[in-house]
Amino acid sequence: MLEQLKQQVLEANLELFKSGLIIQSFGNVSGIDRSNGLIVIKPSGVDYNKLKIDDMVVVDLQGNIVEGDKRPSSDTPTHIELYKAFSGIGGITHTHSLYATMFAQACRQIQCFGTTHADTFNGPVPITRYLRREEVEVDYEKNTGKVIIERFKTLNPLEMPAVLVAGHAPFTWGKDPIESVKNAQTLEYVAQLAFGTLIINPQLKILPKYIIKKHFQRKHGPDAYYGQQNFNK
Amino acid sequence: MLEQLKQQVLEANLELFKSGLIIQSFGNVSGIDRSNGLIVIKPSGVDYNKLKIDDMVVVDLQGNIVEGDKRPSSDTPTHIELYKAFSGIGGITHTHSLYATMFAQACRQIQCFGTTHADTFNGPVPITRYLRREEVEVDYEKNTGKVIIERFKTLNPLEMPAVLVAGHAPFTWGKDPIESVKNAQTLEYVAQLAFGTLIINPQLKILPKYIIKKHFQRKHGPDAYYGQQNFNK
Amino acid sequence: MLEQLKQQVLEANLELFKSGLIIQSFGNVSGIDRSNGLIVIKPSGVDYNKLKIDDMVVVDLQGNIVEGDKRPSSDTPTHIELYKAFSGIGGITHTHSLYATMFAQACRQIQCFGTTHADTFNGPVPITRYLRREEVEVDYEKNTGKVIIERFKTLNPLEMPAVLVAGHAPFTWGKDPIESVKNAQTLEYVAQLAFGTLIINPQLKILPKYIIKKHFQRKHGPDAYYGQQNFNK
Amino acid sequence: MLEQLKQQVLEANLELFKSGLIIQSFGNVSGIDRSNGLIVIKPSGVDYNKLKIDDMVVVDLQGNIVEGDKRPSSDTPTHIELYKAFSGIGGITHTHSLYATMFAQACRQIQCFGTTHADTFNGPVPITRYLRREEVEVDYEKNTGKVIIERFKTLNPLEMPAVLVAGHAPFTWGKDPIESVKNAQTLEYVAQLAFGTLIINPQLKILPKYIIKKHFQRKHGPDAYYGQQNFNK
Repeated sequence: MLEQLKQQVLEANLELFKSGLIIQSFGNVSGIDRSNGLIVIKPSGVDYNKLKIDDMVVVDLQGNIVEGDKRPSSDTPTHIELYKAFSGIGGITHTHSLYATMFAQACRQIQCFGTTHADTFNGPVPITRYLRREEVEVDYEKNTGKVIIERFKTLNPLEMPAVLVAGHAPFTWGKDPIESVKNAQTLEYVAQLAFGTLIINPQLKILPKYIIKKHFQRKHGPDAYYGQQNFNK
Repeated sequence: MLEQLKQQVLEANLELFKSGLIIQSFGNVSGIDRSNGLIVIKPSGVDYNKLKIDDMVVVDLQGNIVEGDKRPSSDTPTHIELYKAFSGIGGITHTHSLYATMFAQACRQIQCFGTTHADTFNGPVPITRYLRREEVEVDYEKNTGKVIIERFKTLNPLEMPAVLVAGHAPFTWGKDPIESVKNAQTLEYVAQLAFGTLIINPQLKILPKYIIKKHFQRKHGPDAYYGQQNFNK
Repeated sequence: MLEQLKQQVLEANLELFKSGLIIQSFGNVSGIDRSNGLIVIKPSGVDYNKLKIDDMVVVDLQGNIVEGDKRPSSDTPTHIELYKAFSGIGGITHTHSLYATMFAQACRQIQCFGTTHADTFNGPVPITRYLRREEVEVDYEKNTGKVIIERFKTLNPLEMPAVLVAGHAPFTWGKDPIESVKNAQTLEYVAQLAFGTLIINPQLKILPKYIIKKHFQRKHGPDAYYGQQNFNK
Repeated sequence: MLEQLKQQVLEANLELFKSGLIIQSFGNVSGIDRSNGLIVIKPSGVDYNKLKIDDMVVVDLQGNIVEGDKRPSSDTPTHIELYKAFSGIGGITHTHSLYATMFAQACRQIQCFGTTHADTFNGPVPITRYLRREEVEVDYEKNTGKVIIERFKTLNPLEMPAVLVAGHAPFTWGKDPIESVKNAQTLEYVAQLAFGTLIINPQLKILPKYIIKKHFQRKHGPDAYYGQQNFNK
């Protein structure tokens, strides 16, 4: 079942590994079939260079394993919460990529200092609070999702496809699994840029808002003119 | 038409990708045929590992598409302004390469601290001002070119083949597309050197001017003796 | 003799080299056969890309060469001390990997700022004192082991599979050679994360203890649920 | 003539390029045949991935081209001065490698903070003064060599096989071309370690002298026991 989605999730996981954002078995990508509420996700702790399509695990939105011989990623309950709360997304990526994770560990959002950031993220990439003791001791991974959703109360996940979990690492999402991986790559790039920018100029203010708006809109707005979408010669 | 220039522009784009200065579809290289005022440029938003010669787009100096099925790079109007203002150049490269972009985001020029810099750039690599709101809202990419040209009022683009656009990223140029890519590589290298040099010695003054002059001249002056040019055994 | 262990030690050394943690002939991996007290270790100063299974050297716990044509790693006496003191370990890796070695040279432990760290290291990665003059002049490598063991008086090596030797570099260990290499990779990753985290937020406090405990236990505790261990669908 | 030395110099140049210490045509390696006072060196400005054995240039100690169709490296007069002053060396490497060049640009020596440094460099890696105006304007490359030699008045080049030229970049040497390349790799590694070490602990003092001495001697002293030299099982 869900062979096409499994193939997409496998390829997205392999692309994630190839892009150097993870070592060993850190990180995972999932995708959802909204028509039947089923999620395909990487198995837990399996090395990327041994991943096969039959290793992919199918779970429902209650976390039950519907198909697969392996234990799904230990982060599965986080993915489920995000799919339930953010109805417009189709894929989720979790990494411990270096620069994004530095900001997550440092408990700092990533301010928008340039157009590379604004092309994908419409504002600062937000950071959650630490989970509380009781949120860690019971249902830890589910509560990780809940803390992200709490942080997005006033944010639009389709205009901000990334979050930093304090003391942990980033999650990104997109319309499908591969877009969530591309957003993870861009997040890491933007985090490294911000890291260096602040070293060069610690007093820097953020990019003027009219530039941020322009760049986000030219790629994602109704009149987007970046790429080959809606192109009539 | 322009098969040779298309081939040069394709190869320059692929060399840019191979050199690790860009991820995904960030960045672009163009070249101009001065005899008929036609520019060949990368299409917008196409992944580098799928680029073919027939994807190259030919535009004239008014921005009209003369040949090609794809939308040209969204930065095409910037390239056009530069070709019109800097008559001695034949190729332009735009990247978001990490260290050069950090300086661009930080709104800081790159001072000349060593001979690696002076071999290619005859002085500090300049930074533009931010574009104003009205320059962003209408004809943004064209105005990006105009802001660069404004910054070069007292600079010779043949002795300074690079600029940082504030809050954005670098542009480089050269006598042909591949030289503009080489200058993009050197700019990134020089930016990383300056970044680390300032961390080691924040009070450092720039390299003595007589050393800068010597190094630029031994590679680019009338009596250049670097490389195999004008060599008579 | 010990063909299987030699193969494991060879493969672990090659994996170490492939992972980019070392240049030239820096670093070494060993494994022990506890049933007969014999250690297999890389020869001294041999380039990794020329290593063959017959180059592996077998030594006993007194440091005598039992098999092999080559001189064993000059760090062999350090490995022997660790195997004698830490009865639960089966493999040891020594590297001069960049970020872990920076902390070792700086005489600073690596604080736990995130879950990437807590997944493998149950607390800060400890640093030894400098060896004293007399410890350096006679039996230097053996005394390096002794100084590590001194530092572990109140630490459990199975919950803290790494140490930084002041002014020198890290050692890691595990249940077998390949696990000691994986711990060396994770240590380097965690060191780089801590390095950048402290630059972003120099005043940062360590991760709350209940999060450290949770992450270490979910991977290594009796009820671990990370990976495919103890999985009954 | 000198086919074996040409082959060694070619291979050393290719190893230098493979090790990532240079981009484009920056850097060069040479070797000397002491029996007849002839030097083999890379041609100027030729890309590494096109280098062939017949491109190698043979010059004598007066700088005359004895064999070869190409202009020798523009740094040839520097190499000649070093070969004349340091009679014990057989190969020289010049790079603009990132971290070593940062220290050179910052006009700072590289202090010895750890055993990785002490294994190859017996003390701090020295930095020259800037060349004076008149030293730059006439015989610049020859005077670069003279300024290095001036700095080595009280140093033994066989115990310190590297120097940083202020505002420029490093030179390293060794008993043959390939050893000079290995020393260039180690210098870059040691420079990056020192860079990060000082960020972690800006007040750090150098490694105790008895540890520096021990490490240099165990690899290079009369009773060296590192590697496979003088090994009698």
